[in-house]
Amino acid sequence: MSTQEALSALSQLLGDRLSRSKSDLAAHGASETHFPPAPPEAVAYPETTDEVSQIVQICARHGVPVTGWGAGTSLEGHALATRGGVTVDFGRMNKVLRVNPEDMDVTVQPGCTREALNQELRATGLFFPVDPGANASLGGMAATRASGTTAVRYGTMRDNVLALEVVLADGRVIRTGTRARKSSAGYDLTGLFVGSEGTLGLITELTLRLQGQPEAISSALCAFDEIGPAVDCVIATIQMGIPMARIEFLDAASVAAVNAASNTGLPVMPHLMVEFHGSEAGVAEQAESFGALVEDFGGHDFRWSSKTEERNALWEARHRAYWSILASKPGATAVVTDMCVPISRLAQAVEETRADIAQSSIPGPILGHVGDGNFHAILLVEQGNRAEMEEALALSGRMVERALTLGGTVTGEHGVGMGKLGYMESEHGQGWEVMGEIKRALDPANILNPGKVVRGN
Amino acid sequence: MSTQEALSALSQLLGDRLSRSKSDLAAHGASETHFPPAPPEAVAYPETTDEVSQIVQICARHGVPVTGWGAGTSLEGHALATRGGVTVDFGRMNKVLRVNPEDMDVTVQPGCTREALNQELRATGLFFPVDPGANASLGGMAATRASGTTAVRYGTMRDNVLALEVVLADGRVIRTGTRARKSSAGYDLTGLFVGSEGTLGLITELTLRLQGQPEAISSALCAFDEIGPAVDCVIATIQMGIPMARIEFLDAASVAAVNAASNTGLPVMPHLMVEFHGSEAGVAEQAESFGALVEDFGGHDFRWSSKTEERNALWEARHRAYWSILASKPGATAVVTDMCVPISRLAQAVEETRADIAQSSIPGPILGHVGDGNFHAILLVEQGNRAEMEEALALSGRMVERALTLGGTVTGEHGVGMGKLGYMESEHGQGWEVMGEIKRALDPANILNPGKVVRGN
Repeated sequence: MSTQEALSALSQLLGDRLSRSKSDLAAHGASETHFPPAPPEAVAYPETTDEVSQIVQICARHGVPVTGWGAGTSLEGHALATRGGVTVDFGRMNKVLRVNPEDMDVTVQPGCTREALNQELRATGLFFPVDPGANASLGGMAATRASGTTAVRYGTMRDNVLALEVVLADGRVIRTGTRARKSSAGYDLTGLFVGSEGTLGLITELTLRLQGQPEAISSALCAFDEIGPAVDCVIATIQMGIPMARIEFLDAASVAAVNAASNTGLPVMPHLMVEFHGSEAGVAEQAESFGALVEDFGGHDFRWSSKTEERNALWEARHRAYWSILASKPGATAVVTDMCVPISRLAQAVEETRADIAQSSIPGPILGHVGDGNFHAILLVEQGNRAEMEEALALSGRMVERALTLGGTVTGEHGVGMGKLGYMESEHGQGWEVMGEIKRALDPANILNPGKVVRGN
Repeated sequence: MSTQEALSALSQLLGDRLSRSKSDLAAHGASETHFPPAPPEAVAYPETTDEVSQIVQICARHGVPVTGWGAGTSLEGHALATRGGVTVDFGRMNKVLRVNPEDMDVTVQPGCTREALNQELRATGLFFPVDPGANASLGGMAATRASGTTAVRYGTMRDNVLALEVVLADGRVIRTGTRARKSSAGYDLTGLFVGSEGTLGLITELTLRLQGQPEAISSALCAFDEIGPAVDCVIATIQMGIPMARIEFLDAASVAAVNAASNTGLPVMPHLMVEFHGSEAGVAEQAESFGALVEDFGGHDFRWSSKTEERNALWEARHRAYWSILASKPGATAVVTDMCVPISRLAQAVEETRADIAQSSIPGPILGHVGDGNFHAILLVEQGNRAEMEEALALSGRMVERALTLGGTVTGEHGVGMGKLGYMESEHGQGWEVMGEIKRALDPANILNPGKVVRGN
């Protein structure tokens, strides 16, 4: 059988870095959320780009699927080996290769996590800003076009990847760009591979933009009676050009869960959490301007702080919100939705979603990156309860349709994976066909993460 | 002959909006720079997306090349009809379709120029920041991934196009995105078409991000004895996180030409020109911090101003620099180079380039967008003087090689067009093959702007 031949060739190439242990297969067949397990037939642990190229060539020769694996933190089942084959785990390719402080860029291997990178950068005065919450691998973040709390200021992975090294479906290795800050030299291959979820190539090296660590950081927190004025306050803040580094929304249910888990003692009503980066005088001015807007829009309980511990405690609580919410229903698993709409439609999107959830039997706190028009409902489903799962998936489906009706996208930052494939045609129409044409041009035998992103793949 | 059949069908479709007049063909066969004329066989002036689709379908049926035309301001001969066929002039599709102030976006037709858009936006408190100098069409700016003086703060067209409507090579019409600020729903088609120079599709509508007009703007100007410290000052400014809206470099020769044309009376030595956007207090703080850095790096003649007239006069002079330089050698045409390197290599790149130009018989003032590592030499060649042209092109070729040696790109913002095609393989290696594979997937008959961007096209 050809898979056996491939595995035997891979075993010769990698020795004990090709694993077929049950626990390894199970670990690489599971996801963070509700998708059923889908283990690969083997897990490869390459150490070099050349090894990745050889792995892909062997699998291509035998028609064996190849799926990339970073830190396993994706929420849409991207890295599940739904057709078996070989999972390429980048855990051993996790180095920071070159920091260029003058150019404010860094080159890393794909298995390096964002926290490890920022740890390594600490002494340089620089940091990598994209922050999806989880300690994801940078290769995975690029592959899924991740973003998170700081995208409102620093952009998504689309904006922060300067260049990639990629192994293509036939084993060719390409570089998609240089370290120049900008280029108009032909098609934007970097942009094409960022967000392609391992279906066009495997990322083996990334050159990333860095930012200077701000001289000062301050945070602000405020409560609103209703969602509408909170969102209007955000719109006004953006229009005034106040350069928030983060601006997060939590609904009353999210605040209740955070209070329960972190003793934050906040009033149980909708909140905005904001962070400012800049000079000492700058962040004070930003916080003051924001405070005035909060008052204009009827917000209250405004407080701000530039003290590191207070700030960290607050954002720790925000980062743990997903787990706090999960803990609020013991034994639950989560269906995490990911709507993103033009910000003028955000209040309507959140309110309709909240009303829809309220009519269901499923708890679903809402929180999100309100400066981008992006929010999540964490739908809590009793594990193994099929009726609840169906109800949650129906809710999720209505949210996707609502996002499209309101001029938005079916997934703001979590990617397509298993969960959003069924909505791609609704969002993109003929554009989805074009994606398929590109896929077939670059991976005609369909061995790279088959079953994801494009039709009939 | 099949071209005749196509023209007759197009004539039926468009009536007198299909032009075969000599002057029209000549106007659409000329470029701003040194490329030989290459007129099309007809010029089409569509008024709707549907007409563009029908034009492409007719041309596809008869194998007739189709080349898009915006404002004709490109510097690399992108829109020259080197294989004849039909040029699609978007001059009648020049409307601002929808402004969404709350979402800070706008939807325009491709023939709308950036100045016309900003004129229309004036009352909204918003503006479109990308500024390549020329009053280019927005469709052309997207097609060539243009940028210019403000990219250091606001990014290039890559960063400022939210979504496109595109007519493909077979006449299909797709939308590449929504008005949501971000999305992770599959391949980034917007990014693929931005910078594809009309070889993958014709852009018929653009949705663009807008920025809030800053509360205050100030400018600063300073002189340096040498290029090295000027560039080091820029690096320090960026690393400190001072959010300059523009930071431009002019060498002594450029300053001399600007003085002659605009009576600016600047000392004839390298200069930095900077602009700050922000609050009143913010721009004052930025100018002060920048002034301190200028002193640290041995700059002098520092002056700053927040007065609108002084500021406008300065930037007018900068924007006219190309014409001022051209005027410094009467009867000259220009070969405009476009190196972009990591900023740490910029001083070396400029100094080696200056030395190379000094050894030639060609005048070549240097100026550029120094915050991006991007600069231009304006090589002045007597019209019709073949020896000078050869010397200039040899200089330009060495600059391109220098850019690659220093880890940069062969074109920072002017695109590939006719002038950089020969260097694509040097920059991209196998990546250039991948571009060709994408081109063949989306335009198998090679009717869209043939001869540009990819090999053998």
